[in-house]
Amino acid sequence: MGLDQSRSREITTDLYELTMAASYFDEGMFAPAIFSLFVRQYPPNRSYFVCAGLDDLLDYLEFFHFQPDDLEYLERTALFSSKFLAFLERLRFTGSVRAIREGRIFFSTEPLLEITAPLIEAQLVETFVINAMNFPCLIATKASRCLQAAGDRRLVDFSLRRTQGIDAGLKVARASYIGGFVGTSNVLAGKLYGLPIYGTMAHSYVESFPQEIDAFRAFARSFPKNTVLLIDTYDTVAGARKAVTVAHEMRTAGHALLAVRLDSGDLVHLSREVREILDGAGFSQVTIFASGGLDEFEIQEILAAGARIDAFGVGTKLGVSADAPYLDSAYKMVEYAGRPVLKLSSGKISLAGIKQVFRVSDDRGLLQRDLIGLHDEVVSEAEPLFHLVMKDGKRLFPSEPLDLIRQRFLQEFARLPATYKALRRAEKYPVEITPRLQTLQDQVTSEIRKKELGGS
Amino acid sequence: MGLDQSRSREITTDLYELTMAASYFDEGMFAPAIFSLFVRQYPPNRSYFVCAGLDDLLDYLEFFHFQPDDLEYLERTALFSSKFLAFLERLRFTGSVRAIREGRIFFSTEPLLEITAPLIEAQLVETFVINAMNFPCLIATKASRCLQAAGDRRLVDFSLRRTQGIDAGLKVARASYIGGFVGTSNVLAGKLYGLPIYGTMAHSYVESFPQEIDAFRAFARSFPKNTVLLIDTYDTVAGARKAVTVAHEMRTAGHALLAVRLDSGDLVHLSREVREILDGAGFSQVTIFASGGLDEFEIQEILAAGARIDAFGVGTKLGVSADAPYLDSAYKMVEYAGRPVLKLSSGKISLAGIKQVFRVSDDRGLLQRDLIGLHDEVVSEAEPLFHLVMKDGKRLFPSEPLDLIRQRFLQEFARLPATYKALRRAEKYPVEITPRLQTLQDQVTSEIRKKELGGS
Repeated sequence: MGLDQSRSREITTDLYELTMAASYFDEGMFAPAIFSLFVRQYPPNRSYFVCAGLDDLLDYLEFFHFQPDDLEYLERTALFSSKFLAFLERLRFTGSVRAIREGRIFFSTEPLLEITAPLIEAQLVETFVINAMNFPCLIATKASRCLQAAGDRRLVDFSLRRTQGIDAGLKVARASYIGGFVGTSNVLAGKLYGLPIYGTMAHSYVESFPQEIDAFRAFARSFPKNTVLLIDTYDTVAGARKAVTVAHEMRTAGHALLAVRLDSGDLVHLSREVREILDGAGFSQVTIFASGGLDEFEIQEILAAGARIDAFGVGTKLGVSADAPYLDSAYKMVEYAGRPVLKLSSGKISLAGIKQVFRVSDDRGLLQRDLIGLHDEVVSEAEPLFHLVMKDGKRLFPSEPLDLIRQRFLQEFARLPATYKALRRAEKYPVEITPRLQTLQDQVTSEIRKKELGGS
Repeated sequence: MGLDQSRSREITTDLYELTMAASYFDEGMFAPAIFSLFVRQYPPNRSYFVCAGLDDLLDYLEFFHFQPDDLEYLERTALFSSKFLAFLERLRFTGSVRAIREGRIFFSTEPLLEITAPLIEAQLVETFVINAMNFPCLIATKASRCLQAAGDRRLVDFSLRRTQGIDAGLKVARASYIGGFVGTSNVLAGKLYGLPIYGTMAHSYVESFPQEIDAFRAFARSFPKNTVLLIDTYDTVAGARKAVTVAHEMRTAGHALLAVRLDSGDLVHLSREVREILDGAGFSQVTIFASGGLDEFEIQEILAAGARIDAFGVGTKLGVSADAPYLDSAYKMVEYAGRPVLKLSSGKISLAGIKQVFRVSDDRGLLQRDLIGLHDEVVSEAEPLFHLVMKDGKRLFPSEPLDLIRQRFLQEFARLPATYKALRRAEKYPVEITPRLQTLQDQVTSEIRKKELGGS
């Protein structure tokens, strides 16, 4: 559904995926492999993640095939044999995917999806898998933190101009909606994802009229049912008084001013003053919309200081997840040809074996702890989070409606105890490894040490 | 040239651009406007910027026209009149663009481009203009800092898996090349931009063989002319010894091991130990390639501590510009219908009038200071940085070859004194405003205060 999800996705990859594949092909290594996607550790001030991005990923896997001009490019690199290129031409993704559903909460170290496929297929998709999941999860998480700070006030994604490219802008709009936002300023995202779109005027609009009040009146003429006035171009308080004048004129004409927007200055002080001006003039139903460099920390702070704001436009700092602009995600092989594997590189240890994540809730439904276990374990009174979503390269379910995913998130977020949702210094949610999985780790680690390091 | 630069770009925009345009249309406001793009202030640890992204932007402007299904979507929103939608259908970008060339260095507050066009056209392109320039400039700048840290060691972009989407991955590959990198792991970027591509193997490759040395041998068989061995999957030092074994075997077969790669652990200590092992075995021509969580700070630090590394793969922290993930860029109207304008919003003041940037160098060619002046000023012995690159909606020059842009950057970067290139606490490069431009600011500000604030 995203932008250009159909072109050259197969070579949207790191070269090493292709060189490894070529070697596997030469060596006849076609046995099934299992890869696991997880986030190694929390970035600063994060204590949970929100799953997003799976729909794009499944679309990519289902339609995976190298296109002729991409194969011609690979041929021109002179790195690959014609036999291997002929193999790539026929290659489709025939594997299966087990995954946590979009909108679910997950925690560091636990897998959010596992892919089982012939080695070359499972390896070739690595770069795209990480890219497709990493950023949406990052943004849905950031959005949920804004929601946590804003309480019942509405949040709108305003980030497109400063997202890291256009694809990022679309991903932010979709993922922030999953994470509790009510819509976006991004028109293309509105079209592609059916999201509510928001927007009124910029400072340049006000400046292009001889006087500020001319701009307000013109906008009310063109959009009488949808008038939100930006009042801080020259002076916010003076702007609020002009908005009141226009609100009176609109009322006389049978319309109503919806809101005013503040985009700069001391939002606590200004919002209170503007609220008084509006209320004093009999316009208490006119809401106050704030924007300008906001994030969850700022929203929490200004509300705590008594700001009178009804809705927030959150831009750049949401759109790049400014305080934590990436997740330390990894897609690691955990089994090849029936043999569990892991790596021992310092600080980057992975969990061998095909796995399941189990979630234990208390009797009020509050999340208590998760367990990472082996795929075929049964953990009583725990919910298994992995579902088989793709088999033999085919999706087992159609794309889920975004509103369903968003509701799934909101319901589970309400079940996550507040202590794990603090914006700073949140408690660490308990994630345990089952005894059977631990035994497997110990066994594989010791075998590798024996084999590669002479038993040390 | 980028990914999907041809689809729905016109609605890759904030909704308010369209609501403002609709109101301008209703009001008959078709006079020319001038907008100026600039970065308000430096992010932490930045002291200059590198210009990138213009080529994509000019492509967007030249082919600007609303597509039928996008217009249908706009109609379904029920926000716009059919007259306005018919106007949009015919709309093309007919304006001109003056800009600093890609690869040039620029500084905060000075414009990097100005667009002159009928108001609606100049306004509608705002979101895309900022999005197209902001991120490439951010990344070219980050790349140049890595170059500053790495000296004459080679740098390769490894970021694709964790860039904020796919478009971001392409933009990172292109912009980091401009900023001095030698290539990328991103295969699609290789195809689209003609960039050198790099890559060999991941840890999973090593793990899928019964033993590490089997993996090394297999890779050398498939890529005898291009063998780089990843040696840290289990134990870096043990891996280096196995690499030596394979290097001997390759030599016997008439080939040569190119390099080994370290991706984890203490790179200072390990690179020295690995260098000794290689040198001791007679393989001093085998280079050491390092990756894993690197950025300019880490590269500077480990080289200062004596790491023996010949080339770096720089990934995530380059790809999202992790320490400064956005620029505070703004696209502001500076003149409408011949009347200079600006806004007075707290902390967000813009410079009215149509401008030029002048660069003064000393007699050795070192950059000394910049002046922001009016378009028609003459500043003696200063180079004007703005060039007219688009007129009447048509590009005046074809796309520039990337290598030319990269050379332009490297040459000017060498002329920027070291004191402005320090990774931390760099000196602030002097940017002044000419007396004529200052007079205009004072005049416009005082007029606005009189008009909007009752002369206060």
